[in-house]
Amino acid sequence: MQKRSLALRAGGFKVVFVPTMGFLHDGHRELLRVGRERLGDKGALVLSIFVNPAQFGPKEDYGSYPRDLGRDLKIAEEAGVDVVFTPKAGEVYPSGYKTYVEVMGLGDNLCGPLRPGHFKGVATVVLKLFNIVGPHAAIFGAKDYQQLQIIKKMTLDLNLGIDIVGVETVREPDGLAMSSRNAYLSPGERKQALCVPSALESARLAFASGIRESSVLIEKMKKNIEKEPGAVVEYIKVCDKESLVDLERITKDALVAIAVRIGKARLIDNCILS
Amino acid sequence: MQKRSLALRAGGFKVVFVPTMGFLHDGHRELLRVGRERLGDKGALVLSIFVNPAQFGPKEDYGSYPRDLGRDLKIAEEAGVDVVFTPKAGEVYPSGYKTYVEVMGLGDNLCGPLRPGHFKGVATVVLKLFNIVGPHAAIFGAKDYQQLQIIKKMTLDLNLGIDIVGVETVREPDGLAMSSRNAYLSPGERKQALCVPSALESARLAFASGIRESSVLIEKMKKNIEKEPGAVVEYIKVCDKESLVDLERITKDALVAIAVRIGKARLIDNCILS
Repeated sequence: MQKRSLALRAGGFKVVFVPTMGFLHDGHRELLRVGRERLGDKGALVLSIFVNPAQFGPKEDYGSYPRDLGRDLKIAEEAGVDVVFTPKAGEVYPSGYKTYVEVMGLGDNLCGPLRPGHFKGVATVVLKLFNIVGPHAAIFGAKDYQQLQIIKKMTLDLNLGIDIVGVETVREPDGLAMSSRNAYLSPGERKQALCVPSALESARLAFASGIRESSVLIEKMKKNIEKEPGAVVEYIKVCDKESLVDLERITKDALVAIAVRIGKARLIDNCILS
Repeated sequence: MQKRSLALRAGGFKVVFVPTMGFLHDGHRELLRVGRERLGDKGALVLSIFVNPAQFGPKEDYGSYPRDLGRDLKIAEEAGVDVVFTPKAGEVYPSGYKTYVEVMGLGDNLCGPLRPGHFKGVATVVLKLFNIVGPHAAIFGAKDYQQLQIIKKMTLDLNLGIDIVGVETVREPDGLAMSSRNAYLSPGERKQALCVPSALESARLAFASGIRESSVLIEKMKKNIEKEPGAVVEYIKVCDKESLVDLERITKDALVAIAVRIGKARLIDNCILS
């Protein structure tokens, strides 16, 4: 992959990169569509599929994370991907692997405290993939908002010179954010999962009606989630959209972020209030 | 610098990089000489001069570290350097900087425990400089053996694709390893400092006579250092030369490493027993 990318760059190609963990859905299709748009006259669209062990905790779903390479390759072809990079875990982290990168502070809130080591694992694998693929631009979904912020900051801090593009969350017709982990939901849980987008909608409506106190917005969202007996709130937060620090009161653009467990699925979603 | 290097690479130049903290001495001249040798027909030799605040502890000598840019630039010109890169601290670490890289384990012995955060600061700045300068090869002195090992490991782990070249320590005629920090020594301390290379020599002789127990070698070196009343041992170690873990007994190539304080100067030196 590294040789191929060096050759592409030396040949004047623009390399645009979409890193994923596979089990592709319409959200990924949208990332690939945005990626293709950015290629210009002479470009190569690179998709990586790698379920990264370093970003899963010991009790998390690394082993059971859904995988379907055959289907993914078909979607990649339909989406006009030029190169699919599918390294093995032992190639990315050979025996004796020791080096990790961390963006201090941005992992302290939201998913960070609940998934110790997760964002260190994300930052490390993304840095490695960037070094291997050597892209001019890389495309990430905004559903994983905290991840997107951490990657933007790492890219800036480490002088990577890569354009990080965030793409709006793609949703099912009923509003549920697309996620590979939606595959964990039983039909009943799938219906309950709608409490997440409807909680965000309740925050948007309350904000539009003039409410600015985070505690009031959070209380409204909590009530929405608690209507579903199977939904367990991990967090509901209103934060500064750059620093990801909790806000007591919204005075500028703010991030609203939710994490909820329903059955085996951990669902996250967010919106910006502005 | 980043634009210049991208243009050099696009033009088919081989970029060879010597990162330093300046106050150049014959050790650096040797790094530059080895660098020039590696350029081939069409290459550019890049020297960086940057006293990196992130690798100094709060009680260390960041403020007083010797600096002489005018003299350094003359030496660079004589040595055939093509580009000198002298960023400011506020450019390398702008306000709100957050990202650090760490090579786990290799900083746990030798200088690591005595200089908390030092190797994290070294790894981070070297990664940033690599990303800015984009070299094909980079040259480091073996006096900073632990640093060299950490950089080699980081480069491998993060798929940087850069050839890391270690260069043997350059010594004064009487055996003292060249170091910018030798400038801290008074004439009397300068004489006392010879206990460091003579301790290493005593270990080499003992090893040549068949001694393999680390404790015996360390005791011999300690006696050499303790002959000088002004010399304070920070550590004397016999380690595995790859993992830097202490060895009880030498059964393959081993690193002997010493750190000693004499007056304001902290001197390090090492040799390989094989």
